[in-house]
Amino acid sequence: MTAPAAARASRGRRPGAPDTRAEVLAAARASFAEKGFRGTTIRGVASAAGVDPALVHHYFGTKDDLFVAALEIPVDPREVLAPVVAAGPDGAGERLLRTFLGVWDDPAIRPGLLAMVRSLLADDDGGLVRQAFIPVVVGPLLAELVPDRPEARIPLVASQVVGLIVTRYVIALPPMADMPADEVVARIGPVLQHYLTGDLP
Amino acid sequence: MTAPAAARASRGRRPGAPDTRAEVLAAARASFAEKGFRGTTIRGVASAAGVDPALVHHYFGTKDDLFVAALEIPVDPREVLAPVVAAGPDGAGERLLRTFLGVWDDPAIRPGLLAMVRSLLADDDGGLVRQAFIPVVVGPLLAELVPDRPEARIPLVASQVVGLIVTRYVIALPPMADMPADEVVARIGPVLQHYLTGDLP
Repeated sequence: MTAPAAARASRGRRPGAPDTRAEVLAAARASFAEKGFRGTTIRGVASAAGVDPALVHHYFGTKDDLFVAALEIPVDPREVLAPVVAAGPDGAGERLLRTFLGVWDDPAIRPGLLAMVRSLLADDDGGLVRQAFIPVVVGPLLAELVPDRPEARIPLVASQVVGLIVTRYVIALPPMADMPADEVVARIGPVLQHYLTGDLP
Repeated sequence: MTAPAAARASRGRRPGAPDTRAEVLAAARASFAEKGFRGTTIRGVASAAGVDPALVHHYFGTKDDLFVAALEIPVDPREVLAPVVAAGPDGAGERLLRTFLGVWDDPAIRPGLLAMVRSLLADDDGGLVRQAFIPVVVGPLLAELVPDRPEARIPLVASQVVGLIVTRYVIALPPMADMPADEVVARIGPVLQHYLTGDLP
C-alpha cells in the first residue's frame, strides 16, 4: 500500500465521496466558530477535513459561499434579496420587509432560521455576525440598493430588522408575534424606506 | 430545643440576617428561570428560601419589584424612564433614546445590562421577556406616555430599541457600535417618535 492510499484508507473514504462534503462543512463550521470569519481559510478548512483546497472550492465556491453554507440557513439570503435589489430603491422598504416576512413566516423555513439566529446571538462577542453575516451576506446587496451613504444606512436598516426578528420570532412578543404580515409591512415598511432613502442627519 | 428554634438552627441563620436577602433573591431567580414569571409566587419563593412571605414583601415589595431585583439590572428602568414619561409625548422619542443611551453607554452600567440581555435572549422560548420584562417593567410606563393605542405602539418601539441594543451592544456592529450618541439620537429618535405618536395604519 502506498503512503497516500494509506492516508485515504485511514480516513475511511475516497476524495469526493458523499460524506466528504459533510466533513468539509463540519470542518468549516468548527473553524468559523473557533477562529471567526477572518481567521478561517479555505486552505485551513481543507486541511482539517483532509481534502484538497480545490475540492472545497468545487463544493462550495468562495469563502463567502462556504460561510453561508456553514450557517445552514434553509435559504440563501443573497438569492432571496436579489429581486428586491433589482427592482430599485422606490418602495424597497416595503418590498424588503414583505420578502423577509415571506421567508421567516414560512413554517418550513422558520425553525432553521431561528436556530441560526440563536447560534449567532449565543456567539459570545457576536463576532460572526459583525465580521461576516452582515458584511458578507447582506451588506453588499443593500449597498447596491442604496448607493447613497450605505455605511450610514445599512446599520439603521439592520437595527430595525434585527429588532423585528428578535421581538417577532425569538422573544415572540405579542402582538408583534401574531401581527399579520400586511400590518407589519404597513407599520415598519415606511421606517425601512426612510432608513434606505430618506434624509439622514 | 423547640421545633422552630431547631428549624432556624438548621438553616444556620436568623430570619432577617444579612444573608437572608441574598437567599430570597437566589430563590426568586431560580423560580423565575424554572417556572417563568406567571408560575412564580411570593409564597413559593418564600418557602424555597425558608422565610415568611411577609419578609419577601418587606425586602422586595411586589412580585414585579422582586422580578426587577432578580434581573440584577444595575439600574431600575422604571426609575430611569419616569422623567421621560413625566415630560409628556412631545419629543419623547429623542428623550427616550438619549436616556437609554446615557444608561447603556455608561461603562460602569453596560456590563450588567449586557449580562441581563444575554441571559434573557438565552432563555429558550424568550418567556421571561415576553411574560414579564416588557409587560411589567417597560410597558406600563410607555402606556402612560402614549395613551393612544399603546398595544400597537409599544411593540414597534420595542422592536427598534431591541434592535439597537442587539446591533450596538450585543453584536457591536460597526458603525452602530461606535456611533456618537448624538448621531444615534438624531437618526433613530424620529423613528421612535413616529412609533410613539405618529399616524399608524
